[in-house]
Amino acid sequence: MVTSQPVITRTTEEFQTAVTRALSAAQDAFDASATEEEPAQAARLGFIPTMGALHDGHATLMRRAREQNAVVAVSIFVNPLQFGPNEDFETYPRTLEADAKVAAEAGVDIIFAPSVDEMYPGGSPLITVSSGELGNLFEGKTRPGHFDGALTVVNKFFNILEGCVGTHEILAYFGQKDAQQLSLMQRMVADFNHPVTIKPVAIVREDNGLALSSRNQYLSDEDREAALVLSRTLALLREQSISRGFDRLDLKSARDYINGQDNVRLDYLEIVDPENFAAPTEDSKRALALVAAYVGETRLIDNMELS
Amino acid sequence: MVTSQPVITRTTEEFQTAVTRALSAAQDAFDASATEEEPAQAARLGFIPTMGALHDGHATLMRRAREQNAVVAVSIFVNPLQFGPNEDFETYPRTLEADAKVAAEAGVDIIFAPSVDEMYPGGSPLITVSSGELGNLFEGKTRPGHFDGALTVVNKFFNILEGCVGTHEILAYFGQKDAQQLSLMQRMVADFNHPVTIKPVAIVREDNGLALSSRNQYLSDEDREAALVLSRTLALLREQSISRGFDRLDLKSARDYINGQDNVRLDYLEIVDPENFAAPTEDSKRALALVAAYVGETRLIDNMELS
Repeated sequence: MVTSQPVITRTTEEFQTAVTRALSAAQDAFDASATEEEPAQAARLGFIPTMGALHDGHATLMRRAREQNAVVAVSIFVNPLQFGPNEDFETYPRTLEADAKVAAEAGVDIIFAPSVDEMYPGGSPLITVSSGELGNLFEGKTRPGHFDGALTVVNKFFNILEGCVGTHEILAYFGQKDAQQLSLMQRMVADFNHPVTIKPVAIVREDNGLALSSRNQYLSDEDREAALVLSRTLALLREQSISRGFDRLDLKSARDYINGQDNVRLDYLEIVDPENFAAPTEDSKRALALVAAYVGETRLIDNMELS
Repeated sequence: MVTSQPVITRTTEEFQTAVTRALSAAQDAFDASATEEEPAQAARLGFIPTMGALHDGHATLMRRAREQNAVVAVSIFVNPLQFGPNEDFETYPRTLEADAKVAAEAGVDIIFAPSVDEMYPGGSPLITVSSGELGNLFEGKTRPGHFDGALTVVNKFFNILEGCVGTHEILAYFGQKDAQQLSLMQRMVADFNHPVTIKPVAIVREDNGLALSSRNQYLSDEDREAALVLSRTLALLREQSISRGFDRLDLKSARDYINGQDNVRLDYLEIVDPENFAAPTEDSKRALALVAAYVGETRLIDNMELS
């Protein structure tokens, strides 16, 4: 595979300059090859915000963005605002060299890897994004402030891009594994009138069903085996929902099954409407089974669409 | 004075289309009159967010924007989010016809006067802007949620504009009368990386010193007379600060003087550093005397820079 190395930018200004130039060059190329029958496309920017420790789940987002956009940019920023005081901010894997390789292979043009001081000069920002009631459920309940922090940094990235794309469209890619985060990002774009289109991308799993996660690297071999109970349970619920409907699932047995696994402690297993993360009603168009559990010391989440 | 009627837009899309078109026409005109010695300027957008009930304070903002920008847009939106449950949202003056006349005379090109449902489809937004500690002081203490609401709607306006200006710059004008609001808007632009420049504009006063305010129209003739105690007290403190320095002001006497006025009840009179609204320190570059008081039933605010 032919890959060219992505440009790595460290400051907001460097990043914006790189994006503006790349879009302009892409548009020039489109314009030059335009014909009367096939007028030039408008060059679009695909953006993937990440915390690095890139795995094939991220690469899938990048490849999707690559297919759909003239320019692809990735941010790599371990955002302190979205970690709680007892969480793994300090130890979260920081692997920029390996990340740049993953990004290069997926065809990414630009990496934005700012320092904490570049993103939050003068310490924590005074003005932040509030994730409201939806941000206090599920992951937000276990991780207070997590979603406010995630929205605050993505809102900054969106504004940074809006300040340099000119008339070019922005498409932002989020994985469905963080279902609640995806839903909150969609709400933020709508509630804030961001000129950004959110593109959800399906969960990537290992052949054995384990959903890819940067935190999987914390798992021992035994943990990895134990962790399979999560995707297995979700798949079981999915099968049950096909035969019985999602309002007649045996959640109690499913919870017991997870808790019965050695070294696994269930946080929650629930069925929700992904629009609002409340229990699905007759009007719900979709239903999602959500699970979060500690496998050893590592907290994992997963979800699966029911039918 | 030759005035042309501003375009009144009601939906976000209408507003964005009008802004895009006006900027494009302005740029074409600049380009057409460009010479080799004087290359074309870049057309800029001046934006003034208001709640209507426009008075000469607003007109001053608009005239300033008119001088500095190729296109001037004003929003007129009585934003329910920034009113408390016991405040005057229902009775706040709504005077679009008169407002359009004020805007026309100031040379405004585009008015955006959306409905509440256009700005908040489906009711209150889930994702909002949080004004943090600064938003809980002074006005925020008396009016909980006020600044979150003001930031939330202005953040939306900025994103709406960022979605339609292309590469044209946005300058947003705010009066210094709402000193805390101005400071919060400046912090939001910095903390959120909004590609917007905030332009502060000095307070406009009647000849007798009364700061212009949409709420002045609630005042009886007697109230208007009584209200003068606010600007007089600020002017006195300013004089004292010139002779003594702002760390040796007699605030107690000043407070007593205001409370001694019939029909006036002081809420607060304080000296702050406008950077953070804390007490000024030796490092403070500026100091502001802030006052808020009820005159009859009407709550008024004013402020003056000390030296």
